[in-house]
Amino acid sequence: MERLGYYNGTYGPLEEMTVPMNDRVSWFGDGVYDAGPCRNYKIFALSEHVDRFFRSAAALKIEMPVTKDELKDLLNRLVKEMDSGDLFVYYQVTRGTGIRNHAFTQGAGNLWITLNPARICDGKQPVRLITTEDTRFFHCDIKTLNLIPSVMASQKAKEAGCEEAVFYRPGGRVTECAHSNVHILKNGVLYTAPTDHLILPGIARAHLLRACAALGIPYKEEAFSLEDLFSADEILVTSSSNLCLHAEEIDARKVGGKDPILYERLREYVLNEFYTQTEA
Amino acid sequence: MERLGYYNGTYGPLEEMTVPMNDRVSWFGDGVYDAGPCRNYKIFALSEHVDRFFRSAAALKIEMPVTKDELKDLLNRLVKEMDSGDLFVYYQVTRGTGIRNHAFTQGAGNLWITLNPARICDGKQPVRLITTEDTRFFHCDIKTLNLIPSVMASQKAKEAGCEEAVFYRPGGRVTECAHSNVHILKNGVLYTAPTDHLILPGIARAHLLRACAALGIPYKEEAFSLEDLFSADEILVTSSSNLCLHAEEIDARKVGGKDPILYERLREYVLNEFYTQTEA
Repeated sequence: MERLGYYNGTYGPLEEMTVPMNDRVSWFGDGVYDAGPCRNYKIFALSEHVDRFFRSAAALKIEMPVTKDELKDLLNRLVKEMDSGDLFVYYQVTRGTGIRNHAFTQGAGNLWITLNPARICDGKQPVRLITTEDTRFFHCDIKTLNLIPSVMASQKAKEAGCEEAVFYRPGGRVTECAHSNVHILKNGVLYTAPTDHLILPGIARAHLLRACAALGIPYKEEAFSLEDLFSADEILVTSSSNLCLHAEEIDARKVGGKDPILYERLREYVLNEFYTQTEA
Repeated sequence: MERLGYYNGTYGPLEEMTVPMNDRVSWFGDGVYDAGPCRNYKIFALSEHVDRFFRSAAALKIEMPVTKDELKDLLNRLVKEMDSGDLFVYYQVTRGTGIRNHAFTQGAGNLWITLNPARICDGKQPVRLITTEDTRFFHCDIKTLNLIPSVMASQKAKEAGCEEAVFYRPGGRVTECAHSNVHILKNGVLYTAPTDHLILPGIARAHLLRACAALGIPYKEEAFSLEDLFSADEILVTSSSNLCLHAEEIDARKVGGKDPILYERLREYVLNEFYTQTEA
């Protein structure tokens, strides 16, 4: 199969899959998700992602229809049915099915999985970014399906010929990107926003901090501003889709490029971890 | 039919309807909706609701698959197929169908309709409320499907044995309820939050203000605080599900009940407008 869709035990080609109209995702976007890359049929950092997935569901009191081990087994089994072993492995749980009513539907949630061909970018080519005001809610630490502001920001970035949109709150505090975390290098130190309600605790972010620790590069989990972003030595963008990128342009202004050796050490470490854990 | 579901030209019993997994509602809650009551097979205030529906879609750059007149004709036709003429008429548009990608899918949106039996409450019996912090995004003026905070607040209200949750922003400014607007009467004046990005410009709210104007009751579109709420003469809750309610209890404290004659004049005016326009 090239693209797979799974819903509560049934699966098939993604484009042919249907779901009940009354799934609560339809009326409220009432669910949470997680996702990560797979290479050579090996899902990268699966336990970390599944742990976060269950934390997101618990934060919204969504009852999981499977255990962590059952989910991991299922994902590992499904990837083997795919034409390619290089995939984006995506899963979500929605709060059950029922006539539209804001208050909870009883019972366990619905489990969704999609598998699509994808490859991690090696992060050598710099990317371009825009900035846009962060008007999102105050639950950005939960990986929910309420993603309209990220959709709008991503489209704005695309229309500007850019890869990602950097969010900042009123006052200029940089939070994260539409679907990535963002970090800066300045004078040999990596700065990254603290994991409060304004950002997702990214797993690629955690890997980046582990890389800093392993390489002896100091890092600080401190909020930084738009000014810090524009004057940084390097701007790093991390996500489970593209583990470690760096930016050369923000809002059509040249940025970064002042500490390529340090960026390269981090990039290499992070990518090597991925390649090693997903060897054929 | 008792409950109807419609999706892009196909319709049937709601519980049997399915939709493509790849509808963008599934991944992003990427859509907007509107809804209103129907009595005796006559949809109340349809043009006002459809106008707002198209404004919501335009705000998110979602391409409508129908004109306003086509939608109104379709809704008026579908309600005639129902067992009962007393219905909640709900419709939404989602941003097309495609492989998950934050940036927009090309082309027109998908049109959804549901019709469910429902009756407007006459507003004579007072309701009970809770208060909860408003942690939502800053696009509450758009009627989107990103409704998790309203879901969580509604469940919290339900578990407290209450009908609605009143949102307040940090600092104590009351915005609206999880799925209603909220207003207060104080010394013969009606206060209601201004229509900025923090509240939905409710159509029942607009009708209430028109009732004030018709009855010579002064009103002010001004933000009010939690303290104002608790000390108000009357607390009014309006929505398209229940046009005009009043509260007797908030967070288990007795409130309101100090100007029942003024509330009754408003309630009667609003309900009469509904009954008159939906006469058999």
